[in-house]
Amino acid sequence: MPEINPIRDTDAEARALGRRLLDEARFGALAVREPGTGVPHVTRIAVARAPDGKPLTLISDLSTHTRALKADPVCSLLVGEPGARGDPLTHPRMTLVCRADFTPHSAPGFAPLRAHYLQTHPKAKLYIDFADFSFAVLRVARADLNGGFGKAFQLTPGDLGLNAA
Amino acid sequence: MPEINPIRDTDAEARALGRRLLDEARFGALAVREPGTGVPHVTRIAVARAPDGKPLTLISDLSTHTRALKADPVCSLLVGEPGARGDPLTHPRMTLVCRADFTPHSAPGFAPLRAHYLQTHPKAKLYIDFADFSFAVLRVARADLNGGFGKAFQLTPGDLGLNAA
Repeated sequence: MPEINPIRDTDAEARALGRRLLDEARFGALAVREPGTGVPHVTRIAVARAPDGKPLTLISDLSTHTRALKADPVCSLLVGEPGARGDPLTHPRMTLVCRADFTPHSAPGFAPLRAHYLQTHPKAKLYIDFADFSFAVLRVARADLNGGFGKAFQLTPGDLGLNAA
Repeated sequence: MPEINPIRDTDAEARALGRRLLDEARFGALAVREPGTGVPHVTRIAVARAPDGKPLTLISDLSTHTRALKADPVCSLLVGEPGARGDPLTHPRMTLVCRADFTPHSAPGFAPLRAHYLQTHPKAKLYIDFADFSFAVLRVARADLNGGFGKAFQLTPGDLGLNAA
């Protein structure tokens, strides 16, 4: 069977779709490497945006994903949730391949991120001040966009309006 | 800081919740190891049940997850989708650590799985006969159940009504 490359050339529509999926994400599925076993392990996390637009999450040291990311920051995040109706595989979604940078509770950077995060996630007030919570900014290396059956694109951080740093 | 083990003892309620999440799943987030890089990569897949109850999916050779699973069948699947309302992190979800067993289009086992799958996923008729599609049965090794804030359990295949084979 011949090799088929299903990745289309990136166009303005693909960029706009990727930006919208990131803008609308309130949660996502995070894949990490489980320490010791190397198993690719997926969990749900809350998703916000850092002041510079990067994906941002607030996670607890008690969770498996936080322990995994502290051992190995390479991860990926799936955003773009299907609604209750229709075929979920026709709903667009995007995988962001990332590295996690932590800002622990004790770091000077925590307070400004705390104020910023509570603007979009006010219910996090219930646990944001527990000592086991940290922020993790997800630095995006690339994004695999699936706009529905047969519509695959590979986007850069720049395509999503993010700087690569 | 002392090590805290947040895993509770499995009880009947946890088993029932895990079985319900698996029963209700029509799609999920699949984490695989990307060939070459080893990056934990997460994508959306359709989820059904095999005749013996194991999670079952229908996937294309053109997708990144199929290529990854054919190189390395170790994966995990997140099920339990939050609704549009409320805090998504209070919604229960479960991570199934699995190995993928393929039944390609050309295998004798494809036809019975095809008939079984179309009962619950009739829209798949549009693509189920394309030669690049295979079934993958996910053999569950363990399940990490998160019933909401502070309610973490580790379930066995038996807890979910699945045999380990």
